[in-house]
Amino acid sequence: MTAPIVAVIGGGQLARMMTGPATELGVTLRVLVESPDAAAAASAHQIVVGMPGDADAVAAVLDGADVVTWEHEHIPAAVFEAAAQRGIPAFPSAEALAFAQDKIVMRERMDALGAPNPAWAPVHTHDDLDAFLAAHGGVAVLKTARGGYDGKGVRVVRSAVEADDWIAAAAEGGPRLLVEQKVAFTRELSAQVARTPQGNVVAYPVVESTQRDGICAEVIAPAPGLDPLLAAAAQGLAITIAMELDVVGMLAVELFEVDGSVVVNELAMRPHNSGHWSMDGAVTGQFEQHLRAVLDLPLGDVTPTAPWTVMANVLGGSREHLASALGEVPDSGAKIHLYGKDVRPGRKVGHVTVAGDDLEHTLSRAREAADIVRDGAPRRATATGGEA
Amino acid sequence: MTAPIVAVIGGGQLARMMTGPATELGVTLRVLVESPDAAAAASAHQIVVGMPGDADAVAAVLDGADVVTWEHEHIPAAVFEAAAQRGIPAFPSAEALAFAQDKIVMRERMDALGAPNPAWAPVHTHDDLDAFLAAHGGVAVLKTARGGYDGKGVRVVRSAVEADDWIAAAAEGGPRLLVEQKVAFTRELSAQVARTPQGNVVAYPVVESTQRDGICAEVIAPAPGLDPLLAAAAQGLAITIAMELDVVGMLAVELFEVDGSVVVNELAMRPHNSGHWSMDGAVTGQFEQHLRAVLDLPLGDVTPTAPWTVMANVLGGSREHLASALGEVPDSGAKIHLYGKDVRPGRKVGHVTVAGDDLEHTLSRAREAADIVRDGAPRRATATGGEA
Repeated sequence: MTAPIVAVIGGGQLARMMTGPATELGVTLRVLVESPDAAAAASAHQIVVGMPGDADAVAAVLDGADVVTWEHEHIPAAVFEAAAQRGIPAFPSAEALAFAQDKIVMRERMDALGAPNPAWAPVHTHDDLDAFLAAHGGVAVLKTARGGYDGKGVRVVRSAVEADDWIAAAAEGGPRLLVEQKVAFTRELSAQVARTPQGNVVAYPVVESTQRDGICAEVIAPAPGLDPLLAAAAQGLAITIAMELDVVGMLAVELFEVDGSVVVNELAMRPHNSGHWSMDGAVTGQFEQHLRAVLDLPLGDVTPTAPWTVMANVLGGSREHLASALGEVPDSGAKIHLYGKDVRPGRKVGHVTVAGDDLEHTLSRAREAADIVRDGAPRRATATGGEA
Repeated sequence: MTAPIVAVIGGGQLARMMTGPATELGVTLRVLVESPDAAAAASAHQIVVGMPGDADAVAAVLDGADVVTWEHEHIPAAVFEAAAQRGIPAFPSAEALAFAQDKIVMRERMDALGAPNPAWAPVHTHDDLDAFLAAHGGVAVLKTARGGYDGKGVRVVRSAVEADDWIAAAAEGGPRLLVEQKVAFTRELSAQVARTPQGNVVAYPVVESTQRDGICAEVIAPAPGLDPLLAAAAQGLAITIAMELDVVGMLAVELFEVDGSVVVNELAMRPHNSGHWSMDGAVTGQFEQHLRAVLDLPLGDVTPTAPWTVMANVLGGSREHLASALGEVPDSGAKIHLYGKDVRPGRKVGHVTVAGDDLEHTLSRAREAADIVRDGAPRRATATGGEA
């Protein structure tokens, strides 16, 4: 066996962050990037420029690869067929990925597994939606079954007329719709596991994630004050889902904590924003772990290396070029990760991680570092009472 | 400022291991590699193939770079001139690097600084060498002033006739020679610091390194049982040397511990094998730190993330392709780093790192992992008394 080649479909920051661990493992990372400016284009060992729907580009990224994996869920069936024709394992498989691609398929499967779903229903008509609203307190969350991310494809509704456009689009062949109970959750949790084709599994500590405007803003590992039994239950649920859905690679089960229990929010079958903390806060980061899993290697140690690790996303910001941020972040133990993307309002352009013994201090250091990366060093007060 | 470009002369594993941190910092790493098969060729963001003596290749790697640095000491003066012509900072500078390139120049400077040297003398003739041997117990270490590494250019001698070839070569314009007292050391230590152009300095914990056949085999961080005062003295010595020699980037001061004190063995002005532990065992690894230093960024936190970190080199071995090792190393928390090099006897082809709370356990896990990467999983005894 010469250096194994892992093909990755999708050239965003998730593929980018696979590159460093691939290099250290002696693995060649070959990435199908959407454009030469994609986040992973500069870092990947080999690139093919093209879309996942471009058969020639897919052939070029697959030929000679040992395995193919994905950094997002939008993988056409033709890609799986092309991999199968070449005898190249594709992880997670089409069958598994279906549950991350389509929220109706996922909810049905969770129900069948006995996994804790919120109340939900498919929506075909205004009547479907109004009936659900009437039964669930007059407010609910309408979602497109496919294509949503980072708050897109999700809408809080109080009346079916608010969904005219989506219902009309669905009737004309657009994305199917489902409605979910608006869960009065205490907080959001994420349970991540990795699983190999042989079925070996490891579970990371359950983390707390905070969203702003539908986008992950902050993650605390482990989730502070989480009942150990509930943490074990969340890990067990994620392991069960990985096994039952035959997921290979990283799986993130996003959860709502509510009334001392959890309900499933979403599934992601890839490295996930809620796991970025592990790059700096666990023996084996999620990007190395994903590569290990899809290559059917022994999974790495998931032990945290510090009592607390806080990850703060850098979302948009006022800088033209993030690189200038590097000189401004003081040495506060913050690990900076930039994705090489142009800054646009609200766009995830990087993240910072801080580990420490004291949660409040660790949180404030991470927030400060993310703020500085985003907008520059805060002005220090010079009047009386200010810091020097 | 768009993504800063760091040019690196030399495409071995040290340049390779700079790539991951460069990606995360949003820094473009452009490497002059000796061949398309060089360890760094696959990982670097941009490569130029050529030798440091090739003016066209040097021009290609320098044009548009923000700073240029080195992963080895064999940098021709023309490279510094080419950088100066373009106004590109070169770190460490020619003046600083001279002390790492030439052991006579280094010894003279250490003497001038009052740094602890072993007894030493330049050697021009057989008489020079015999006189030194007579004065120092009849045995000494003869070295070429330039070009030695990993045990090359070093010879233990008991009589000048044993050095006929080197003395003749030196007389004909070959490398100058020096002889050093054979120090009866307890062990070898390494003190690493990083320094920015502005003069900011951080010191890593002093580590113990074990050599086999002149090649670093193992590093323990921090050095077990080291007197805290001696550790502070070693760090202070390394800081002084970095300041006095105006080193920018990583500096490793290799030391002999002898009679409760230290003497200087060698200097390396770049990331060093004795610092590989920090990739996995400190908040900021030496490769990120070197990039931070030469880019004049705030230096990163050097706090260890575990009580003990052990690094074990993978030297040569019996495998044809190291990649097959990945499937055999059990999850023992070992972090594996492969350099993408062909296996040759004794060649450094990778390293493993294990962190832990108990030194003996950590050591044995690191050694076991390095053994497995090198030669495959050890056969388990099946007879009575063996392990199952």
